[in-house]
Amino acid sequence: MKTKIAVANGDGIGPEIMDAVLRIFKANDVKLEYEFVEMGKSYFDAGHSTGMTAQAKETIETLGLLFKGPMETPKGKGVKSINVTARKVWNTYANQRDFRTLNGVDTVFSKAGIPINITIVRENIEDTYGGIEHLLTYDVAVGRRIITRPGSAQVIRYAFEMAKRKGYTKLACAHKANIMKLTDGMFLEVFKDIAKEYPEIEATDIIVDDLCMKLVSRPEMFQAIVLTNLQGDIVSDLCAGLVGGLGFAPSANIGDNISIFEAVHGTAPDIAGKGIANPTALLLSGISMLRYLGYSANAAAIENALLYTLEQGVHTGDFGDKSIPASNTNQFADAIIANL
Amino acid sequence: MKTKIAVANGDGIGPEIMDAVLRIFKANDVKLEYEFVEMGKSYFDAGHSTGMTAQAKETIETLGLLFKGPMETPKGKGVKSINVTARKVWNTYANQRDFRTLNGVDTVFSKAGIPINITIVRENIEDTYGGIEHLLTYDVAVGRRIITRPGSAQVIRYAFEMAKRKGYTKLACAHKANIMKLTDGMFLEVFKDIAKEYPEIEATDIIVDDLCMKLVSRPEMFQAIVLTNLQGDIVSDLCAGLVGGLGFAPSANIGDNISIFEAVHGTAPDIAGKGIANPTALLLSGISMLRYLGYSANAAAIENALLYTLEQGVHTGDFGDKSIPASNTNQFADAIIANL
Ligand SMILES: CC(C)[C@H](C(=O)O)[C@@H](O)C(=O)O
Ligand SMILES: CC(C)[C@H](C(=O)O)[C@@H](O)C(=O)O
Repeated sequence: MKTKIAVANGDGIGPEIMDAVLRIFKANDVKLEYEFVEMGKSYFDAGHSTGMTAQAKETIETLGLLFKGPMETPKGKGVKSINVTARKVWNTYANQRDFRTLNGVDTVFSKAGIPINITIVRENIEDTYGGIEHLLTYDVAVGRRIITRPGSAQVIRYAFEMAKRKGYTKLACAHKANIMKLTDGMFLEVFKDIAKEYPEIEATDIIVDDLCMKLVSRPEMFQAIVLTNLQGDIVSDLCAGLVGGLGFAPSANIGDNISIFEAVHGTAPDIAGKGIANPTALLLSGISMLRYLGYSANAAAIENALLYTLEQGVHTGDFGDKSIPASNTNQFADAIIANL
Repeated sequence: MKTKIAVANGDGIGPEIMDAVLRIFKANDVKLEYEFVEMGKSYFDAGHSTGMTAQAKETIETLGLLFKGPMETPKGKGVKSINVTARKVWNTYANQRDFRTLNGVDTVFSKAGIPINITIVRENIEDTYGGIEHLLTYDVAVGRRIITRPGSAQVIRYAFEMAKRKGYTKLACAHKANIMKLTDGMFLEVFKDIAKEYPEIEATDIIVDDLCMKLVSRPEMFQAIVLTNLQGDIVSDLCAGLVGGLGFAPSANIGDNISIFEAVHGTAPDIAGKGIANPTALLLSGISMLRYLGYSANAAAIENALLYTLEQGVHTGDFGDKSIPASNTNQFADAIIANL
């Protein structure tokens, strides 16, 4: 069991919400040491094209686990997102996001009495995320979409193992193989092959547009869904919307050697430094991380405290019952600590 | 004003729902003549690789307007969807789908009291729909995604004109230009350029994943959205889900010389021939077609009768209040006719 991990605060509201989460960990006596690393927009601006110092990279590679706050994507044509770069350099091939209804977080679906409980596993490296594009003429832009058999296999196998671990009875593969017959066709073929090794899990496939139609009308049809990168990106955000937005969505980037647990919402520069940001998404990612690392008792205790706190109506300014005064970040964390 | 159009019944439930719609047109004294054309899966199976006879193609090109039922996509690796082929050969570059809440059609959103009124304009030819893919090795599949400036301009201009015609105050362009910087970047650039010609319409842009998150939580933010082909396909189905599914979604493929109004739901082979299919989507497409052709009074009368009939609780077996007995296709059409 790892006892030390790398932590990158992130940009904007990153430091405040990271501080709140680590205080909650400490209050629950989580036996982890943190090594803070230099990573984020300011390091990019200082000339590190991957958004991190050489020292940060080495630390993360040694420790094998990075817990990170939100990071700002630098602007500019040739520039790559720091988040996307990190996923790629460390081959964190599976992006897992668990979306579930949280009592106290009102959504269209909670009002309609429809509980959400869906895990998205998204391929995290290939597809159009390679950024291989060129201008053929001034008028014609061409991008390449690349899907590989080993790349598909590793994320699909991860999804089946995850489903098994969570006791799910089914896993769907979403795709657009009716149009992208070779690329998505390959992803689907690999899915069907690997499914044979998991007879206990019902494996189905669904066209991605049909999936989106069903997710907004009968989300209870799905337990877990595996998709290629861009379709997974879109469907993940759709599912985030079902549970209240990115402020309530954890994200884990899983690789064989290095994994990254992160908040995927923005850096909220408008409220940065004010101490009023909502730390829930980062805390949910942290809880997933504790579970992944084997700190299951801590994960369960903190999760219960968070759920109970939300149920009590405690909330930051961005959500919740307006008749109950909003807490700031510290008060929100204190309320969770009090419920531990 | 055109007085004659081509009609293709389509496969499966196509003939039944087309018959119902044309009966409603007739009852409202729509002054259109129909030339039925040979198009659909059986013509594909008989050796016509585009799914239509030469005669059908000629008729459609002469008349310039095709009203079509759903068509089955033949299976097989090299085979192209008949629907997609039709859009391409006639350069129907804009796919418009209007999604609105229908009283009598319950959805998660209607239950939450959130009315939907969104028009999607999707580029209909380019993107990965070119089907340009190859296997680089057994393990690596490569697809090409092509976006052109003239192709983007024609659909974006159509979207602004449509917004103006409908009295909309805003139009959003959704894209993933943060990752696909040249292809989606070109689409976005063209959008921003053309927007300058329409100062009366507020032009905004939004990343497609963020759009999907907002569509499922605050759909009232949007009036009209223009997108590239595949993203538009996905978002269209998402929006269909908001209003009750593809059974309630009209679709128009608009080109400069030929336009196609169609039902985009499936052919429902399981209930084909039973006379119980729901003709609403085809009727909604037909109403859009009448309006497009200039038969505005007919369009308004039939639309009002449809809306009133749905409000009364009249429904086919696939939707509606189970305490009111389901109508079959003919009874449903008769109820609309009675309300004309
Ligand atoms: C910021 C962006 C590049 C990123 C992505 O597209 O993967 C984000 O949407 C996400 O889902 O983490
Ligand atoms: C059937 C399929 C090829 C088609 C598409 O992808 O365009 C459909 O989803 C649609 O939206 O009309």
